[in-house]
Amino acid sequence: MADTNGRLREQLDFIQEIDKVKQVLRQTVILDGSRRENDAEHSWHLATMAMILQEHAAEPVDLIKVIKMLLIHDLVEIDAGDTFAYDEVGALDKAERERKAADRIFYLLPDEQAREIDQLWTEFESRETVESRYAAALDRFQPLMHNYLTEGKAWRKHGIRKAQVIDRNRHIAEGLPALWEVAQIMIDESVEKGYLEA
Amino acid sequence: MADTNGRLREQLDFIQEIDKVKQVLRQTVILDGSRRENDAEHSWHLATMAMILQEHAAEPVDLIKVIKMLLIHDLVEIDAGDTFAYDEVGALDKAERERKAADRIFYLLPDEQAREIDQLWTEFESRETVESRYAAALDRFQPLMHNYLTEGKAWRKHGIRKAQVIDRNRHIAEGLPALWEVAQIMIDESVEKGYLEA
Repeated sequence: MADTNGRLREQLDFIQEIDKVKQVLRQTVILDGSRRENDAEHSWHLATMAMILQEHAAEPVDLIKVIKMLLIHDLVEIDAGDTFAYDEVGALDKAERERKAADRIFYLLPDEQAREIDQLWTEFESRETVESRYAAALDRFQPLMHNYLTEGKAWRKHGIRKAQVIDRNRHIAEGLPALWEVAQIMIDESVEKGYLEA
Repeated sequence: MADTNGRLREQLDFIQEIDKVKQVLRQTVILDGSRRENDAEHSWHLATMAMILQEHAAEPVDLIKVIKMLLIHDLVEIDAGDTFAYDEVGALDKAERERKAADRIFYLLPDEQAREIDQLWTEFESRETVESRYAAALDRFQPLMHNYLTEGKAWRKHGIRKAQVIDRNRHIAEGLPALWEVAQIMIDESVEKGYLEA
């Protein structure tokens, strides 16, 4: 590629590398049901939702921090792959696979930028701050909403049960209490309609 | 869908409506050349680039404003479709088609949120502020980079010439001068290698 100075060169290498997240497919389908969603689309949707739903956050949040977290939260899946939310085997070594991916992908950037992204990702995963709880709640609510609106397409494919969905998603209440109310109605209605096993 | 109060109901309607931007295909292909990119992926890529390249902005920018603009800048294409950068016929009524789309899509939201998004989009289109010039420069640089890295896939398909690319993209210099330097090298190299007509 075109010759550039070292710092800009590293930034452009990163920007090109992360194009691969457009190829990481999730289990969730897009709302017309036609195909699986990829991580880039999902991250865009969450970042936009963060703008729109900010007033419903459990506590006031620093929006730019939330959006940065959401834009980069799935980059590790370029190497580690998408681990389905209800995949108990995949979950066993998920943290290790993702840490290794973070070490490769984030550190394509100049050091201090790599560390910023790394800290944002670690904070997102921890759910220990108001921003990460809000961001994580969006990350759970969006696929739940997509499942509900596509008649449980991913749930039915994998034979998911109501108790699993509640267990997996109950922490939406910590970041977005009003949305957890909506989610519970969606879950109950999904069981009634046969989108989700009781 | 689940019963909710009026305001949250409007926000969720918008969030569901904009899922359709995942189906709006652009002329640009993703970097492995396998398929065309859609507007959701493109918007995610630009917002992430805005984070990484902020130090190269021509003037200091308010990053959250830039990122909000980039996240919503292509939503009008849900109704208006993607107008290829070099489509002179499509360009004739583009503004009218997009204004109509904005009136429908943005105003699914509660009024003051709709007006905020509308103002961000209008500002983005104007390129009259430092934030909109930076955002617009990213919006031009990314497809140029994708064309260069995919051996001119979209350029060759449409028989695009160097003068058209320069004319269309020269305003990158107003928002991201360092990237316009890189872009010019990419353009020259693309002509040499036959990705782009002289």
